[in-house]
This record gives sequence, C-alpha cells and structure tokens, in this order.
Amino acid sequence: MKRIYLDNNATTIVDPLVRQAMDPFFCERYGNPNSLHQFGTEVHPDLRVAMNRLYAGINAGDADDILLNGCATEGNNTVLKGVWFDHIRNGAKDHIITTSVEHPCVGNTARFLQTLGVKVTFLPVNRDARVEADAVRDAITSRTALVSVMWANNETGIVFPVKEIAEVCRQKGVLFHTDAVQAIGKVKVDVQEVPVDFLTFSAHKFHGPKGAGGLFIRKGLRLPPLLHGGEQMAGKRAGTLNVASVVGMGLAMELAVRNLPFEDAEVRRLRDRLEDALAKIPDTMVIGRRELRVPNTTFLSVRGVEGEALLWDLNKNGIAASTGSACASESLEASPIISAIGAGPELSHTGIRLSLSRFTTQDEVDTAVDVFAQAVGRLRAISSTY
Amino acid sequence: MKRIYLDNNATTIVDPLVRQAMDPFFCERYGNPNSLHQFGTEVHPDLRVAMNRLYAGINAGDADDILLNGCATEGNNTVLKGVWFDHIRNGAKDHIITTSVEHPCVGNTARFLQTLGVKVTFLPVNRDARVEADAVRDAITSRTALVSVMWANNETGIVFPVKEIAEVCRQKGVLFHTDAVQAIGKVKVDVQEVPVDFLTFSAHKFHGPKGAGGLFIRKGLRLPPLLHGGEQMAGKRAGTLNVASVVGMGLAMELAVRNLPFEDAEVRRLRDRLEDALAKIPDTMVIGRRELRVPNTTFLSVRGVEGEALLWDLNKNGIAASTGSACASESLEASPIISAIGAGPELSHTGIRLSLSRFTTQDEVDTAVDVFAQAVGRLRAISSTY
Repeated sequence: MKRIYLDNNATTIVDPLVRQAMDPFFCERYGNPNSLHQFGTEVHPDLRVAMNRLYAGINAGDADDILLNGCATEGNNTVLKGVWFDHIRNGAKDHIITTSVEHPCVGNTARFLQTLGVKVTFLPVNRDARVEADAVRDAITSRTALVSVMWANNETGIVFPVKEIAEVCRQKGVLFHTDAVQAIGKVKVDVQEVPVDFLTFSAHKFHGPKGAGGLFIRKGLRLPPLLHGGEQMAGKRAGTLNVASVVGMGLAMELAVRNLPFEDAEVRRLRDRLEDALAKIPDTMVIGRRELRVPNTTFLSVRGVEGEALLWDLNKNGIAASTGSACASESLEASPIISAIGAGPELSHTGIRLSLSRFTTQDEVDTAVDVFAQAVGRLRAISSTY
Repeated sequence: MKRIYLDNNATTIVDPLVRQAMDPFFCERYGNPNSLHQFGTEVHPDLRVAMNRLYAGINAGDADDILLNGCATEGNNTVLKGVWFDHIRNGAKDHIITTSVEHPCVGNTARFLQTLGVKVTFLPVNRDARVEADAVRDAITSRTALVSVMWANNETGIVFPVKEIAEVCRQKGVLFHTDAVQAIGKVKVDVQEVPVDFLTFSAHKFHGPKGAGGLFIRKGLRLPPLLHGGEQMAGKRAGTLNVASVVGMGLAMELAVRNLPFEDAEVRRLRDRLEDALAKIPDTMVIGRRELRVPNTTFLSVRGVEGEALLWDLNKNGIAASTGSACASESLEASPIISAIGAGPELSHTGIRLSLSRFTTQDEVDTAVDVFAQAVGRLRAISSTY
C-alpha cells in the first residue's frame, strides 16, 4: 500500500537537497565552530551562508538578531519567559495577551506564567476562526507587556492579521511576538512589512531538520538568555552550534522562500482540489474561508464521525492526517476552533486536518479523496450520531 | 598536509556507524513521533532502543528520568535554574556550591543566579587540580540547595571525586548535580554507584551528533521544565523530538560504553605516548597526575610560549589543539587551573590541551609530537620570556 503523507503541519520530509547539504558536517567537517583551529574556522563560511539565508528569508536587517536555537518551543519559551523576567517580574506591567488557539508551547508557557501572577488574556477566535486586531486593541491595558499571536494557525491554516496587530502594538507601546512556525514557506513572512518585535520559526516545518529553530529579535530589543553559558550568539543563546542543522535550516529557508510561488499556485491548486472533492461528501464543513488560509491546509468537520476515528481509518489505509497539533495529540479535548466558529457541540470532536507540501502529488490527492470518502462511509455506517 | 584532530574535548567526529543509523530519519522515516499515524508511530521502536541505550549507558533505573534535550548547556541550565525556581526563589535556601573550573554553562548560569540574590561558592581546585569532597563538605551550610561539580574537567581531564561528593551531599540532604559531558565514553559513568541526583551529557562529545543531549533526573525528584509546551517527555521538556539525533545519540552512547576498555587501554596508551614525548621537551609541565585523569586528555604548560601562539602554530601545521574550553575560546583569560596548582603567573597563559579519541592513530600522535616540538622551538626562539 502506498503511503500518503498529508500531515505537513506536524512535520515535513527533509528536502533531499537539504539532507545532502548537511552531509559533510557529520564525519568530515565536524569541528566545533568555536574552536580557533581550522576544524573550527572552516565551517564559518557555511554558517555565514546559512545565516544570510535566514536573514534574507524573513527580510531581517543586519542589526536585527536571529538567534539559532533548538526549536520553536525554545524560541517561544525564550520570548515569554524573557519578557516576564525583564518586564513583569519587578516591573509595573503584569499582563500578557495571547490567543486560545496558540501552539501549546505558547499557551502552556503563558499558563505557567499565570502561576507566577501574570494576568493572561486568551483571546478567542471569531466565526472566521480569526483573531482580529480590534480584539487585541481592546484587550491592551497600561499593564500589558506583551502580545503573542501566531502568524498562521496550525489547525485551520487561517492567517492572522499580524500586520494590523503589530501596528496596534507599536502604537500602544506593547511588545509583539509572533509564532511564525506555520507561516514560513506558506506565505510571505517579511519583518520589515510586518513590524513584529520577536518572531519564531522551526526548520522541520519547512523541509529542514528537526532540532533547529530561530528566534528573530528586532534591533534594539533584548531578551535575557534562556540558556546561559558560552559565548555563542554573543552570549544571547549558549550551546555548541549544531552546524549540520544550521546549514540545513539555512538552505531549507532559501528553498521555502524560492518555492513560495509554487506553494501559492500548485500546492494551493492541489489543496483546493482535495478540499472541493471532500466538501462534496454530504454533511462535511470546511473550517475557515479559503482566502484567509495558507495554501496547504484544510480542516474539515465531518458530521457524525469523530476526528480520531477517521484518523485511525485513514491511517489503516495509508493516509497520514491529524486532528490538530501533534504536540497535543494525546489530549482528546474538543477543538476550541470548531466551537468558536459557531458549530454545535455535536461537531466539536469531528475535526480532521489535511496539510500538503510541495512534495504532495495530484495522484496522492486523488487517492486520498477516495480513501477519505470510503472511511467516512464506513464510520457513518456505525455512527450513533449520524 | 594531513590534518590531525586532537581536540576531542571540544567536539568529536560523528562515528560513521552513528551517521548511518541517523540516515533514514531525514527523508524516509521523517514523521513526528507525537503524530498518531504510522509515520509518527513507526519511529517509536527506534526511540525506545535509543532510550534503552542511554539508560543502560549510565545504568539509570526504570523509574529514573532521562530527558532528551538539545545540549548539555540546556541540561545544565535546566538544573541550576530549576533548583533556583523550586528551592531558592521562595524558599529558605539561597546557596549553591560549584567550582571555579566548571564549563561556562554551569559557571555563567551560577553567576546569573547571583544577580537574583543567590549566594554562590566557587570552590577552587587544589594543587592536584581537583576539588575534594572535604572542601564541598566544609562549604555546605543549612542554606545550601545544590552542589554542582563536574565529573571530569574539560581542560585537564582530571576526574573529580564525584562519588564522595555525592555521598557528602546525600548525608547533608543537599541536591547534587554533575556535568558528565567530559566523562561519558572516557570513564565508567554509573548513577547507581555514584548517587547523583542530576547528571547531564552531550552527544557530540562522544561521537554523536551536535544538538542532542540528555538530563538524568533521579527517581522521585523533579525539576520545573525549562521548555514548556507540548506533551513530549511527559511535559518535562517540550519540543518535537529530534528523532535522527536521538537515534544517533543512543547508538553513540552504546558505542562509547562498549569502547571503554579500548579507551582505557589503547587511547590511554597513545595519550601516554604523546605526553611522554612532549614532556621530554625542556621546561614543559604536564598538569595533573596521570592516574587522576581520563585516558584521552593531556594539558601542558610550555614555559615561555603562550598557549594561543602555540595553538596557531600547530594549526598552521595541521594539528588541532586547544587552550581550554571551546565555548570560552574568545576570552583570553588566564587559566584558573594553572594558577591553582601553584605555578607562577608567568605560566598562566602557557596552557595547551591535546585530547584524543578512539579515532586517533599512533601515526597521528607521532606526527603531532614532531610538529609540537618544532613549534615550541620556533616560538621560544622569538619569546621575550624564555
């Protein structure tokens, strides 16, 4: 049975070109870049190329920082805990605004900060599964230290109005962080156009290796290190640089940006083809308006069918899908999004997400449609609610 | 010119077997282990094998934790900041004991905690370049929350009496952490024999990949997560598992342990051969008694020759050496160790470290001796202090 991977919002295949670029840094050019000898210094040009690719990828300026780290979870923890440490702990501010649909590494870090006395506003999404800039504006008080709103949502693919939110935050003098993990490689991410203060990304979501991420920090701003230690990253993030992964992440970023037109045209075409076919199954509902979404994601509610059950049936038949964030896959809570868009409680466990990549083929999409339709038929035949 | 790598305490070549074991997890078995479908679950057996190898490697018990993370810097930050958070911040204790010769990721984290009001005792090494258990015992007060002493020193290779220190800490009811980064693969590391509470290690120091580490936490103890987020590691360390690197680290650990007899015999023989030859150069002094050291490290003082200058000359002639920790390579401070062993200030910048591995050959050692002797000759000829 051919396996079809439609869970690219959870993780992606490493692009074979990336894999190849990483190869020499395991057994040949394995030096520690902090070493003063040739084994150390010979990798510096490769690291510079990688850094340049990351800077170019999000259009960061020379005076901005991009801290290399282990993952977006680390980046997001660095931002939220750093703002707590520098701006809340001993300061006059005690309030953070985020959303109810952030990735757990933002949501749970915010909940951790609540245990330290921080007031956290979790903005709900509206019927478009969006958080609007006006809602952010209304929530900001004189005690607000940070707004953290993701660029694109992992479940629905809905793009949030980060430009407007960034401008609101700038007007109000509040720091703005965005988790851009689900945006890189899907839509244009430009930190000049969108005046964010902090932005996080993760290589394995755009065909780079797992275990590599980046944290953009706007020029003039600082965050206390989450990892103290050696002099790497000018002391802002210690730890031996993972040269192979940094090189891989740099190339993955360049490829992601270079493939944006392909993503916007071909991946979108396939996603629309998939979505149009699935929407023809009776009593299915696609969540979120298409024009508001990244090109690769479709999130559906299938009446009478638990997302979990559908996932299992699809999996048995070779299709990898998801009910939401992989990082929360063990918790079987109702989707806050399906509730927010106004669907009744009978739909709250019916969500299933399919997410494509530039490696997805039309054949795969067409096979997935057939398998999906059959699975829905089987499950509805035994459903007590359909 | 053949290049000879004698800086294995900074980082190591990835064992080709490790490299090979990692290979399928980039472009084939690339699923997120938290995903519920086959792409996610099919890597679970590999992760279990890797975890078992890590547990076996340090003889951890089933009820102990080994948290997978990005590096020893992360592990050490997790321990020191976690103890601050849970035991010092709102508690009756306010004191940490460590040494003046820890890696910067312990030393600088401790200095960071000083800015939060924590009292830190930095124990000096004695004339054997060691920290003795009695010094730890004498420094412990009723307000001491944590003792953090490395298993083996990165500069000298001196093994610290961690068993005795662990026993002192246990008697006194004080938590004990050891940074075992320089011990794994060089000496036996057994957490049953040595009752440490927390222990950190880093794959790239024992022929595993960069960007992968582990944190042992003794059964019954807990540390607040440094990274909050998803459910990975039962919520104790969030972030998508870097499957390729975890698999690589597991195999690297198994190979490190399996090669301990080789390390103890053959690597030691080559190190001794190197050291004996270098010690014949007039006015050189090997730091630290051989029987107190790991088998792979030699740290020498060469009178009249700055370590930095020697490093450059060696480098020009193909030999990779170090003056100390790569993570502190940009700071040109005097070695605290050379001062501690009672050498005069004229020797404080004369240290040079050579560190071997199981991939080092006798030919390389013999070539290194020649190159080293010539370099010393050249540099002494132009030395103002010799």
